[in-house]
Amino acid sequence: MRAKIHVYLKKSVLDPQGKTILQTLHRLGYSNVEDVRLGKEFYIELDETDPEKAKLQLEDMAKKLLANTVIEDFEVEIKEEK
Amino acid sequence: MRAKIHVYLKKSVLDPQGKTILQTLHRLGYSNVEDVRLGKEFYIELDETDPEKAKLQLEDMAKKLLANTVIEDFEVEIKEEK
Repeated sequence: MRAKIHVYLKKSVLDPQGKTILQTLHRLGYSNVEDVRLGKEFYIELDETDPEKAKLQLEDMAKKLLANTVIEDFEVEIKEEK
Repeated sequence: MRAKIHVYLKKSVLDPQGKTILQTLHRLGYSNVEDVRLGKEFYIELDETDPEKAKLQLEDMAKKLLANTVIEDFEVEIKEEK
């Protein structure tokens, strides 16, 4: 099964990297860009056929290793079964 | 308009960060994880109502600034109109 885990900063947390990209885009002439925030994506191949079980496991992995839940939120997306 | 730009390493390019995460997941007991690859996501707010134009502009931004097209591919995803 293929899945994605999206990890991104909570709305209340400042994203200085995104701000820098926003400023650079403005300097390059893209003045209609209003906001940029940066996130991470984990593309994961999992040997598991039950989507429910896969989802639980991926959430567990995100909490334990992939996301810093103090400042980040995450979202699990099951892509397809093998 | 809200959009996402996904930037990820080309399939032919090694992803050492993903490999390290894979090994760590195995060590944590998630032995059914077969592959992990890492990507970036840019969440962008754009003042543009035409989805066609927005897509062209976002592709342009990705090529000029957000992606290193020598080793990375990107994908533009228009999320919703304002």
